[in-house]
Amino acid sequence: MSSISGLVEDEISSFFESSPPLKNKEEIVAKLNQFIELNTSRQGEKRRIVCVTSGGTTVPLEQRCVRYIDNFSSGNRGAASTENFVKAGYAVIFLYRRGTCQPFCRSLPDDPFLECFEFPDAKSIRVHESHSEAVKMAVMDQQAAVEEGRLLKLPFSTIYEYLQMLRLMATALKDVGSCSMFYLAAAVSDFYVPWNSMTEHKIQSGSGPLDIRLAQVPKMLSVLRSNWAPKAFCISFKLETDSKILIEKATKALQKYKVHAVVANELSTRKEEVVVVSSSGNVVVRRDPGKPESIVEDNLIRLIVDRHSTYIKESHT
Amino acid sequence: MSSISGLVEDEISSFFESSPPLKNKEEIVAKLNQFIELNTSRQGEKRRIVCVTSGGTTVPLEQRCVRYIDNFSSGNRGAASTENFVKAGYAVIFLYRRGTCQPFCRSLPDDPFLECFEFPDAKSIRVHESHSEAVKMAVMDQQAAVEEGRLLKLPFSTIYEYLQMLRLMATALKDVGSCSMFYLAAAVSDFYVPWNSMTEHKIQSGSGPLDIRLAQVPKMLSVLRSNWAPKAFCISFKLETDSKILIEKATKALQKYKVHAVVANELSTRKEEVVVVSSSGNVVVRRDPGKPESIVEDNLIRLIVDRHSTYIKESHT
Repeated sequence: MSSISGLVEDEISSFFESSPPLKNKEEIVAKLNQFIELNTSRQGEKRRIVCVTSGGTTVPLEQRCVRYIDNFSSGNRGAASTENFVKAGYAVIFLYRRGTCQPFCRSLPDDPFLECFEFPDAKSIRVHESHSEAVKMAVMDQQAAVEEGRLLKLPFSTIYEYLQMLRLMATALKDVGSCSMFYLAAAVSDFYVPWNSMTEHKIQSGSGPLDIRLAQVPKMLSVLRSNWAPKAFCISFKLETDSKILIEKATKALQKYKVHAVVANELSTRKEEVVVVSSSGNVVVRRDPGKPESIVEDNLIRLIVDRHSTYIKESHT
Repeated sequence: MSSISGLVEDEISSFFESSPPLKNKEEIVAKLNQFIELNTSRQGEKRRIVCVTSGGTTVPLEQRCVRYIDNFSSGNRGAASTENFVKAGYAVIFLYRRGTCQPFCRSLPDDPFLECFEFPDAKSIRVHESHSEAVKMAVMDQQAAVEEGRLLKLPFSTIYEYLQMLRLMATALKDVGSCSMFYLAAAVSDFYVPWNSMTEHKIQSGSGPLDIRLAQVPKMLSVLRSNWAPKAFCISFKLETDSKILIEKATKALQKYKVHAVVANELSTRKEEVVVVSSSGNVVVRRDPGKPESIVEDNLIRLIVDRHSTYIKESHT
């Protein structure tokens, strides 16, 4: 277990104190508790619960926000991983950036209402043959997962919302202990403009260049591991565009934050392979080259679930 | 007609020269020409053509882009205006930010595949009663507009894509003259990082704050008016969060860019009212207070279409 320094703790408190408060906090807490209760109070074996974070966070540059800095992420990794966790028997809390890729919806075309459907008459709707599997998956499989209490979707936009929701989630999952997992695939901003030092109104484009000074977002992973949910199994992600520094950065993150594994991905090859970096060594995970429909996440989630099983066993002995 | 200074022209050339080239340029030009041809070669009266721009542009902070600055815009104004232009008999080129609000889709819920449909058995799909009108509109009305050659949708993400596409569009519409309109509702970045001065790889979050210097995007409105499409009717938009400076800024934009009207909107009241600022005075346009389903765009487009009719008549005399 990592212990964090007083300095980091101060930074984190001051980040939360200066954050604009979460709007629908009570509603989120109620949904979370209901979902966790449903999945832990069942007869027989309890379900494992994973919190999958997905998509990028935004950093407002103005309090009445017109402009913001965004981290690119389609949310594809988080959505595909969620599907695989559901198939593996997990209950998934999907904490996603508004507007990004949704689980069971990855096969839909970009413009589904223009491309998937037709109305042969004003009363009956029909799905085009070419998209029937994709629509069925998006509707049937997704609704089944939600109705069975295996999928809870919660949206965020800003870094303030994301970190407050992550903290709520960790607190709510504390008692689930080693059966809970954090799978942190979201692309979280490293830099932000502290709310108190932010301009209220839209920045004017008078004349000359604009200089922006961004502060570092305190690293919440340390406090998630040490205080919020110390018994949870914890997977973080590292994305780089430069393959030369990727494994080194992932290894440093593993040591610094004491997570159980870091999934290292390079922007240009991330759909073909990732490297799972952990204290037991580095494992390259690829999609099955023989199967065109195969995705990296099929093999990645299998590996992560195995590791989680071992972790649960070891925690109980 | 405004004449633009050599300085502005230099800035604009250097912006385009340093931009990453548009990926599917030939395809876009072909689609544009086909659409314009279809709407101008008809028997009887030609259709008027409006280019509606919608949503915000992004400004990459890294060449292999992980982070970018974004301008907030749901695209609701552009989508609603497009529907009204189609109803008013126009052919619409809808130049929109990927992922933003689509015409005829504004009444769909946030998560349509989870909320709108059900499969009573594995073969037939059904639309929930509560969303049947919304789905019918998104499918039937949208498809009808596309099939009748009244709606062409073209997506962009970055400021580089947006401005190159706007230039293509203006060039393609040049011969349509006063029957063409530019309705520039997109939220275009005022600041950017010139591509050549941009870092190739992801900015590292080593230690300390990050300083970013942003250059001003050259104002393309001047060159659109004076060179690209001087005969087109041209409406620009001004959004501010501070109502005190809004009308002043809109009036300045009207004079500086010599557009035919500026639609002034304040962030917090933009769904209730806008002010159309033009040389004939300022007109406040509101949604009908008696009708809950009424939107500002119903009355706004009626006014703009009237003004365009007058403009066409005057151009022919």
